[in-house]
Amino acid sequence: MTFSAKLSAAIQAKKTPVLVGIDPRFNMIPECLKQGVDSADLKAVADVYRTFSCRILDVIAPHVACIKPQLAFFEAVGPYGMLALADVIDYARELGLVVILDGKRNDIGSTAEGYAAAYLGEKSAWRGDALTVSPYLGEDSVQPFVKVAEQNDAGIFVLVKTSNPGGGMLQDLVADGKTIYQHTADWVEKTAAAFADSTGEKYGAVGAVVGATYPEQLAELRKRMPHAWLLVPGFGAQGGTVKDVAHAFDENGLGAIINNSRGIIFAHSRKDYAGRFQDSEWEKAVETAVLDMKEQFKDFVR
Amino acid sequence: MTFSAKLSAAIQAKKTPVLVGIDPRFNMIPECLKQGVDSADLKAVADVYRTFSCRILDVIAPHVACIKPQLAFFEAVGPYGMLALADVIDYARELGLVVILDGKRNDIGSTAEGYAAAYLGEKSAWRGDALTVSPYLGEDSVQPFVKVAEQNDAGIFVLVKTSNPGGGMLQDLVADGKTIYQHTADWVEKTAAAFADSTGEKYGAVGAVVGATYPEQLAELRKRMPHAWLLVPGFGAQGGTVKDVAHAFDENGLGAIINNSRGIIFAHSRKDYAGRFQDSEWEKAVETAVLDMKEQFKDFVR
Repeated sequence: MTFSAKLSAAIQAKKTPVLVGIDPRFNMIPECLKQGVDSADLKAVADVYRTFSCRILDVIAPHVACIKPQLAFFEAVGPYGMLALADVIDYARELGLVVILDGKRNDIGSTAEGYAAAYLGEKSAWRGDALTVSPYLGEDSVQPFVKVAEQNDAGIFVLVKTSNPGGGMLQDLVADGKTIYQHTADWVEKTAAAFADSTGEKYGAVGAVVGATYPEQLAELRKRMPHAWLLVPGFGAQGGTVKDVAHAFDENGLGAIINNSRGIIFAHSRKDYAGRFQDSEWEKAVETAVLDMKEQFKDFVR
Repeated sequence: MTFSAKLSAAIQAKKTPVLVGIDPRFNMIPECLKQGVDSADLKAVADVYRTFSCRILDVIAPHVACIKPQLAFFEAVGPYGMLALADVIDYARELGLVVILDGKRNDIGSTAEGYAAAYLGEKSAWRGDALTVSPYLGEDSVQPFVKVAEQNDAGIFVLVKTSNPGGGMLQDLVADGKTIYQHTADWVEKTAAAFADSTGEKYGAVGAVVGATYPEQLAELRKRMPHAWLLVPGFGAQGGTVKDVAHAFDENGLGAIINNSRGIIFAHSRKDYAGRFQDSEWEKAVETAVLDMKEQFKDFVR
């Protein structure tokens, strides 16, 4: 089954486009999970990340279709963090979650092939269903990822218009009558459409990252890339609202997944939940936050 | 000591700008190191990568100043590959080599901080002296790397003009009278110059990746970024020659490091060495290739 078909089915089964970002950070993890752990002991911190992440998966798996582990936070605790990441991915797959690895990888030629073979597909070393990819190196740097994704029933999400304030430095520059992000978007659409044509499906294996913090561009890019899944970061903590992301979806409520990381996994310390959850009730806070976000998108998936 | 000072001193001690890329690939590794190893057994492959890489370090450490492990190839064999990478980095530091991690990492805000803290500096989890960084996400995505690099006596190399044929898709587009790579270069120069001013040194903590395969642009970018170290890939296997990279250096033969990966670490199978080395003599081939490349650059470092 293609990545697009798998993602569609998972979203329809859970009736939500909510994507939960797994971004462990030691200083924000509930106290009860890190008592007696020295933050300089990276092996111990990695163990905390494993436990924290897997317990989150237990809570959210009945409610959502997909997760997005942020590789940076696992890499931040060294090689033991990577062992923890591998376990978290395995556990997520066991629970039937679609796993989108947020690594923003990029390189040329055979090195890009190395990354693609590492991360994409059930038989790869890391067993990701999809990987985020950064496009500065150009077409022949992204193509190896596309090829492996299409072959391995996996997907990639290419950075197009990112959610950060400074993203415009390069992305908003205008060349040949189009912004750089539009150039990237047009390449994504062309590539996604070719594969969608070959499978007879609506979407291809190549999607795009488009931030919730730029709602006008999000609406524009939905139209510009009708064959691309959109991965939308920037909802919640970064300021994006349901209204901001409403135009990211197609008429069936598919075509987009809306990420929330901090607002869900660290819900026990959310200001709008102040006083509602004790530290030891952090899993209840996570579940509440997921259900609250699902409620906001309840009529989207048809 | 700043990264720039450390790199200058190491290059002057070894009298060469040669940078050796550590890019293990199972199918190219000498037979004698992988006898009986199943390529599907990733833990065993990771062990081969560790042995192969560390033995290369033994051979090259007396001759060169710096190495560039390509993270993709270690990630390609999963978490055990990352454990091997950590050991290779530790061993390189023990041998006094400057370690430039080629990960082309990139992300926003606190996630970029996560990557930076993970890879940059002696006290970081991965203990890199420097890291390559991809700039599509813009200024506020690169700034966290700069900050950590400057604080931790480490460096970053931002992708400016890459060596691959398709790099021009975005990099060569012209906006506001400048190519995208010139926009990136101007940001690098501004940032490098500010730090160089504060330290009184010639170069800053932020360098640039500029491919040997575009010699005209390399000469142009040397002038455009007088305060940035240049990391030059594309020499050797990709076609770049000594003449192509000659303009990358300053008047003291500093300011640039020239990478060679396959041409050195897999020298036993180089066509121009055909018949010269048996499989078991692969270390002799590596040493020969390093000395050959050093000879080509012998009058550069003064």
